[in-house]
Amino acid sequence: MFTNYKLGVLGGGQLGRMLVRSAIDANLLVHVLDSNPEAPCKHIAGVFQVGDLMDYDAVYQFGQQCDLITIEIERVNTDALEALENEGKKVYPQANVIRLIQDKRLQKQFYQENGIPTAEFKLTENLEEVLAQKDFLPFVNKIGKGGYDGRGVQVMRSAEDLQKGFDAPGLVEKMVDIEKEISVIVARNAKGEMKAYPPVELVYHPEANMVDYLLSPAQISEEHAQKAEEVACTIIQKLDMIGLLAVELFLDKSGNILVNEIAPRTHNSGHHTIESNMTSQFEQHLRSILNLPLGDPSVIIPAAMVNILGEPGYKGTPIYVGYEEALSIKGSHLHLYGKDLTKPMRKMGHMTITDQDISSLIDKVKFIQKNIKVIA
Amino acid sequence: MFTNYKLGVLGGGQLGRMLVRSAIDANLLVHVLDSNPEAPCKHIAGVFQVGDLMDYDAVYQFGQQCDLITIEIERVNTDALEALENEGKKVYPQANVIRLIQDKRLQKQFYQENGIPTAEFKLTENLEEVLAQKDFLPFVNKIGKGGYDGRGVQVMRSAEDLQKGFDAPGLVEKMVDIEKEISVIVARNAKGEMKAYPPVELVYHPEANMVDYLLSPAQISEEHAQKAEEVACTIIQKLDMIGLLAVELFLDKSGNILVNEIAPRTHNSGHHTIESNMTSQFEQHLRSILNLPLGDPSVIIPAAMVNILGEPGYKGTPIYVGYEEALSIKGSHLHLYGKDLTKPMRKMGHMTITDQDISSLIDKVKFIQKNIKVIA
Repeated sequence: MFTNYKLGVLGGGQLGRMLVRSAIDANLLVHVLDSNPEAPCKHIAGVFQVGDLMDYDAVYQFGQQCDLITIEIERVNTDALEALENEGKKVYPQANVIRLIQDKRLQKQFYQENGIPTAEFKLTENLEEVLAQKDFLPFVNKIGKGGYDGRGVQVMRSAEDLQKGFDAPGLVEKMVDIEKEISVIVARNAKGEMKAYPPVELVYHPEANMVDYLLSPAQISEEHAQKAEEVACTIIQKLDMIGLLAVELFLDKSGNILVNEIAPRTHNSGHHTIESNMTSQFEQHLRSILNLPLGDPSVIIPAAMVNILGEPGYKGTPIYVGYEEALSIKGSHLHLYGKDLTKPMRKMGHMTITDQDISSLIDKVKFIQKNIKVIA
Repeated sequence: MFTNYKLGVLGGGQLGRMLVRSAIDANLLVHVLDSNPEAPCKHIAGVFQVGDLMDYDAVYQFGQQCDLITIEIERVNTDALEALENEGKKVYPQANVIRLIQDKRLQKQFYQENGIPTAEFKLTENLEEVLAQKDFLPFVNKIGKGGYDGRGVQVMRSAEDLQKGFDAPGLVEKMVDIEKEISVIVARNAKGEMKAYPPVELVYHPEANMVDYLLSPAQISEEHAQKAEEVACTIIQKLDMIGLLAVELFLDKSGNILVNEIAPRTHNSGHHTIESNMTSQFEQHLRSILNLPLGDPSVIIPAAMVNILGEPGYKGTPIYVGYEEALSIKGSHLHLYGKDLTKPMRKMGHMTITDQDISSLIDKVKFIQKNIKVIA
């Protein structure tokens, strides 16, 4: 190993990009497949190929050239991955795990069957079945397959909302009375060794109703943190999964920990680990899929992570403003994703800020958010 | 900036490799020039070109394509860099600084002229003049130009040693009664902002008489640390240099801080900063040459760095052994340099180990050194 060992990555976005960054240390030759010829990995992958991740042949042929195949996005052709597995290629996470996670209905049934705490739900086959759930209000209607980045999710508070339901196989999920949203990333290798990162908190903007910044460690009780880590470990074990699993959870107002969604890959909620934890999520992902001893996930220093989004009203070649002010803040680090086009709310980069003091950390977040912008 | 901005790096070895790793975050398109077509950067540079770094045309033509040119090795053609500067290209460190540092005689005269503490010395033009220095014994004879990695340095303890002197322009330098060897890396940007890393200690192997491992922070008094940082800052200021400067110093048995040698680039004594300091030396180098606010260089957690050298007796395609044991140590991180050929004592990679407790850190170093080997 470590000499001419070829790692194939399905997806060449920012997660792939930060994985390539870590793969340099392990001397892996990284092949990347992405449908976009201008994807963030194009200049930095050892070999960059253009192809549709949902296309059987594209994925199969790409995988044939590699010793080990992994993903940075779960919308990939799992039949091709299964064929590669059957021919003896290493594919982590495994095709069957990706397939389960691609379908939110299978995901929820999996939680139910394995006693994993999650919000109460019912499967729905079409809009008619959603309309019949008036007594179940308030709830969230989710489409089974193909939802992504907020699409495929519809909040239903009253009978009038029901018409917005999906006329496709999906589910309705009881609205959770959320105290906090947290995330736990857990890694597992082929030996069965397993390590969970301390939970991080997704801090919501009070007006915009979207994630404002991420805070590590989550400001929750030790007991809740432990429970969240336990849940994440149970899921990865029950899935018998190898690789990195991001588990998004709710802490509800009654103190219950409930699984929201999972992603079998590196995750936006783990970017800060590059600077603030003993082992970054990207190094940990490589360790897990290479069946190496897992690194120590513990926090060295508290951190916050701010997504740098395309400014509303601008579309085109990105122009970054305010980065000098942002970088003048002690403990701040800029990560740009190398996207050639900005558009409103597109993730163009992130900044991580580290500080021993949480309140000073939050002040720094506010300053940075005020300054850094991506226009065109 | 940050969109299609081209950074040219002269040299594609491990330092270039780790700089490319950091340049991903800044969305720089990195062009690398190296004489070896199999250099560590070949798969990871945006554009990798083969050419002799000492050749005027190769360096000049390479620099023409870039917005900003830097180095990872000081043996480069400074005339070509000067021509590029004269045409308005940004070259950091500047050609005149590299030229001064390439010649150990100019280096020593610079210290003398600027009141920078360094061991007493005399210039010698040829072997005859070295032979005449019997009264100056014990001393170190250094060749002016072309010495590298221990070559071009000869220790003279007695009259019999004198015949080993260099028959070329060089210098003789009074032997220092060394208590500790330390290193300070300092950064400076075009605005004149300047930041020094806390000193690290080069811990020698008692028998082998070579650096055994690096320890951060150096186990020296606060007063000595401050003095060392001050000296490093004075040098970079007096050189009016932009970029990163590594300053190797002696702490002698009388408590004096003396400059040994300087290197105008990222350095082996700063590798640990990737994991253990607020800002890595590679990020800091980029910030300095891009005229961005400098990062906080302070230590987050103590660290040790162990070079992984080619095992004596082996030459050929590298085989890494014992890395699983080494990676099972909490806080350890592997960095391989991707060299296609191992030979005795060649730097093939390094490991960084972080631990809040210094004595536990040293135990871990010993365990890792016993386990990890590069054979062929």
